[in-house]
Amino acid sequence: MKPRAIVFDAYGTLFDVHSVVFGNGNNIIGDLHALSILWRQKQLEYSWLRSLMERYEDFWIVTEAALRSAVRQLRIEATDSELDNLMRAYLAPSAFPDVNPALESLKGGPLAILSNGSPRMLESAVRHNGLESRFAEIISVDRVGKYKPSPRVYGLGTEILRLPASEILFVSSNSWDASGAKAFGYKVCWCNRSNAEGEFLYGAPDVTVTGLDQIANLRWE
Amino acid sequence: MKPRAIVFDAYGTLFDVHSVVFGNGNNIIGDLHALSILWRQKQLEYSWLRSLMERYEDFWIVTEAALRSAVRQLRIEATDSELDNLMRAYLAPSAFPDVNPALESLKGGPLAILSNGSPRMLESAVRHNGLESRFAEIISVDRVGKYKPSPRVYGLGTEILRLPASEILFVSSNSWDASGAKAFGYKVCWCNRSNAEGEFLYGAPDVTVTGLDQIANLRWE
Repeated sequence: MKPRAIVFDAYGTLFDVHSVVFGNGNNIIGDLHALSILWRQKQLEYSWLRSLMERYEDFWIVTEAALRSAVRQLRIEATDSELDNLMRAYLAPSAFPDVNPALESLKGGPLAILSNGSPRMLESAVRHNGLESRFAEIISVDRVGKYKPSPRVYGLGTEILRLPASEILFVSSNSWDASGAKAFGYKVCWCNRSNAEGEFLYGAPDVTVTGLDQIANLRWE
Repeated sequence: MKPRAIVFDAYGTLFDVHSVVFGNGNNIIGDLHALSILWRQKQLEYSWLRSLMERYEDFWIVTEAALRSAVRQLRIEATDSELDNLMRAYLAPSAFPDVNPALESLKGGPLAILSNGSPRMLESAVRHNGLESRFAEIISVDRVGKYKPSPRVYGLGTEILRLPASEILFVSSNSWDASGAKAFGYKVCWCNRSNAEGEFLYGAPDVTVTGLDQIANLRWE
């Protein structure tokens, strides 16, 4: 059955997190590739660990802590003002090139975002990329004070869209997020742009694509 | 005040997880250093993610999934029998050289282990290193079906030792674990053998040592 609504993850799926460092880290001396990878990894680790500890802080705080941790670990010399610049750039990440065509081709049904990002971060990223009119709902985990892959977070999608999970397609480029959404009960599409290996976690996605523009052409039984 | 009991983390703190690959991976062609690092990273990630998803599987299952994920991601060619050998070796990790002297010097008060490991894994690692008589309690997270740093897990230590968290010293080499224990309320000692950077998470350890044999000489106010 064709899904009645589509819920997108934001960072890594709609927005290229690596555009932040590569577009704005020019003044920083050090391995920018390593910094971008480790920043992202620490950001996710800290979101998981803070959720498990029951010590939630919003994604802005977590993202800044992750940046400072990555810079320290890589022994990169960066001033507070350079780090502030990178943080501000996190409010304006680039959308992947397939996002606009994909959203145009999917505009028949309700589309939503369900993301770890704080409301301010998500609004800013959407506005920066001119996507305001595309989404019926922009849902932040901040409402429940936990991060993905907690079922409390995925439950926000079904509550707010008022549809059962099995009638919603959840789209993520993050394999662990696809797994969490599957464990919750969504129909799941893993957007594997980089030909990555999937995680050995719970379940398998219902469908895998290599770009968001393939979703409109999926055939549902 | 001097702590009335000491609770140790196991993997990374008492037992060297990297002894498994370096001692038993000789037949595997590939970057064993990278394999050992990624195996450990995936093992922790999967424990965190499965806890958050509320899809607990025991640490043996998680450790094997992490090994298969790491091997696949690094494109290491290893047969099932070679992977089985590595998994068996996880039942016999080497204790760090400072463990026996440290436990000898601390034998006055009750000592315990509180670990992600399954009961079978922990019993085997303790027996392999001849440490059976050292610990009053060997506590596995398996009793609550969640992993560190969930407060439910840290709560096992206080329940079983029947002491308030503030009167127990929790010792871990894992900075994120030290942070979780601090968030729960333990007095915390971070054993930072490798001069690592601490995580930017919750709180700071009460004390940092570079080897377990320094604990007996700590002065408590």
